[in-house]
Amino acid sequence: MSSPQPRATVTMSDVAKAAQVSLGTVSNVLNHPERVRSEVRERVLATITRLGYVRNSAARTLAAGGSNTVGYVMVDIANSLYTDVARGAEDVTSSSGMYLVAANAGVRGGTPRQAAYIDHFIEDQLQGILLAVFDNDVSGAERIRRAGGRVVLLDVATDVDVDACTVRIDYELSGYLAAEHLLRQGRRRLAFVGGLREIHAVARRLAGAERAVAEHGGASIEFLPSGDLQAEDGRAIAHRIASRSRAEAPDGIVAAADLVATGLMQALLPEGFRFPQDIALIACDDNQSGRDNAVPLSTIDLPGYAVGQAGMNLLLDEIRNPEHVHRRVVLAPGLSARESSVGRERVGRER
Amino acid sequence: MSSPQPRATVTMSDVAKAAQVSLGTVSNVLNHPERVRSEVRERVLATITRLGYVRNSAARTLAAGGSNTVGYVMVDIANSLYTDVARGAEDVTSSSGMYLVAANAGVRGGTPRQAAYIDHFIEDQLQGILLAVFDNDVSGAERIRRAGGRVVLLDVATDVDVDACTVRIDYELSGYLAAEHLLRQGRRRLAFVGGLREIHAVARRLAGAERAVAEHGGASIEFLPSGDLQAEDGRAIAHRIASRSRAEAPDGIVAAADLVATGLMQALLPEGFRFPQDIALIACDDNQSGRDNAVPLSTIDLPGYAVGQAGMNLLLDEIRNPEHVHRRVVLAPGLSARESSVGRERVGRER
Repeated sequence: MSSPQPRATVTMSDVAKAAQVSLGTVSNVLNHPERVRSEVRERVLATITRLGYVRNSAARTLAAGGSNTVGYVMVDIANSLYTDVARGAEDVTSSSGMYLVAANAGVRGGTPRQAAYIDHFIEDQLQGILLAVFDNDVSGAERIRRAGGRVVLLDVATDVDVDACTVRIDYELSGYLAAEHLLRQGRRRLAFVGGLREIHAVARRLAGAERAVAEHGGASIEFLPSGDLQAEDGRAIAHRIASRSRAEAPDGIVAAADLVATGLMQALLPEGFRFPQDIALIACDDNQSGRDNAVPLSTIDLPGYAVGQAGMNLLLDEIRNPEHVHRRVVLAPGLSARESSVGRERVGRER
Repeated sequence: MSSPQPRATVTMSDVAKAAQVSLGTVSNVLNHPERVRSEVRERVLATITRLGYVRNSAARTLAAGGSNTVGYVMVDIANSLYTDVARGAEDVTSSSGMYLVAANAGVRGGTPRQAAYIDHFIEDQLQGILLAVFDNDVSGAERIRRAGGRVVLLDVATDVDVDACTVRIDYELSGYLAAEHLLRQGRRRLAFVGGLREIHAVARRLAGAERAVAEHGGASIEFLPSGDLQAEDGRAIAHRIASRSRAEAPDGIVAAADLVATGLMQALLPEGFRFPQDIALIACDDNQSGRDNAVPLSTIDLPGYAVGQAGMNLLLDEIRNPEHVHRRVVLAPGLSARESSVGRERVGRER
């Protein structure tokens, strides 16, 4: 396996920084100059000339002689979101005559291990990299762009200012759909359980749930946070809920993650709480464990497979299409109503 | 990425075939000649000379100039056994300064897709490959050996005659431990539910369960097969069980897989069956969904993480140790007793 030195290239980000404008402004100068004030336009064009920025071409040159292989760096192979992404990406590559190799940074490995795999994939001259982000951290993408590689960022929680295609799941809509589903079941004392506002994906879900409640007269929502998103976090919060009077306990719960919901059920069932009669429960991400539960769990479905497909299609377009323009893809989640929120009778799927 | 032609080498398998003996006999001729009858020994040695077999050296030469990367070809990234293996393997490689890249053949891709990834990894001159087998099919390993590559076979269901290290989970013991656990709870009318005898891993589990029952006077076990191992297969068999009189229904069930067990629970709970009062239930492979169930499921734990660790350690030994000898590693499963078989009181872990 050969190991050429990655070539440092000037990226759109470098131009944006040097010209003290946003990436979007640089992109507009290149694609829609009429949208940019002439004074800013001239500053950006002067910076482009000064730094020697050549749009995408350096990256193309480096990768053009390369392999028929693309890479995917996962955040956590133990989380089915990332393996769903792998399946979607793999189905696109295999029908395109390409190969997909995957690497797992891991929750413990974190961004240092992610960076090590990025460097490794770049040295191997892979055609491009699908990069799943750790909590909106785009440093890995910048690393790839600096080395002249192609990257599509997956699972950003908000729109990020980066010189690459991105695929985002609309987590705000996840929270909105979950809370609105409970409100439609007549629930009025809602709780959002689990996670911290500091985690982008949790903050977005909570914001969506709060928006649904705000649109609905006479309902309330409280936030019961937890440090992690495991079943034990759900059980700990369940004990707090069980210690209240029934009139003060929530009658509808949006769990930040399905493991939190499972923990809530495990600890509240023995306390005599019935689902959904006493508490209608829905979780914000559909993992296998929710579908296979003995009391099937209502969930917001994360479109992991579609994220993988969309991400790989964007990457292949960047590889093959000389007119490629970076895009921001936002995928909507779905709602699967199951027994934990609607009882046995009315189980079904809404979109 | 360079693409040299894989070099065809003579393997131990070729010698065994040409001399019409087993691989074990060839190995004995090389390692323990005193164990082999002189007539056979001479035939094998003559074949080795005729074919030009050079023990392991061709493979070493090919790989020696290669990368610091090893590969892992999964059967199905949606099955947590294979992602547990990935985590175990990754922890060994990352602490050894190596990189692990993974590829997913997939259940639909099957052995053709597996072969495509094998060829791709060989062209990339990876140092070696961890190969998870499809139902005891060792053709992939032979493909790698023919090309002069190193391979460790993971999750063979029985000892196989192949010129490579193997890591096997003792599935017979899985079935034995599961049935013996139910017998110890006083259950006497057992059923083994799900799968087909044609699947090696299912046949081994069933054989183990039957052995436990045979050792135990006054107990019986019936086999209720299903074409697949999904929750819907469990639900279909549950309807057959519910249509019997209670005296003829099993009082203990070993489910071939955890999804089958979940399907059984989903369909039998509404029919008034209680777990474990009416039926003590245990599943033969521990996936995440079993642990997170609202009625936690007793399981036999598959040591996927340990399989990955052991496999990678064997592969690194083959890469680094000139005295490497192929080994057969057999890992024992564990038993996690949870509510579905022992009720709320006596939940714990046995080994």
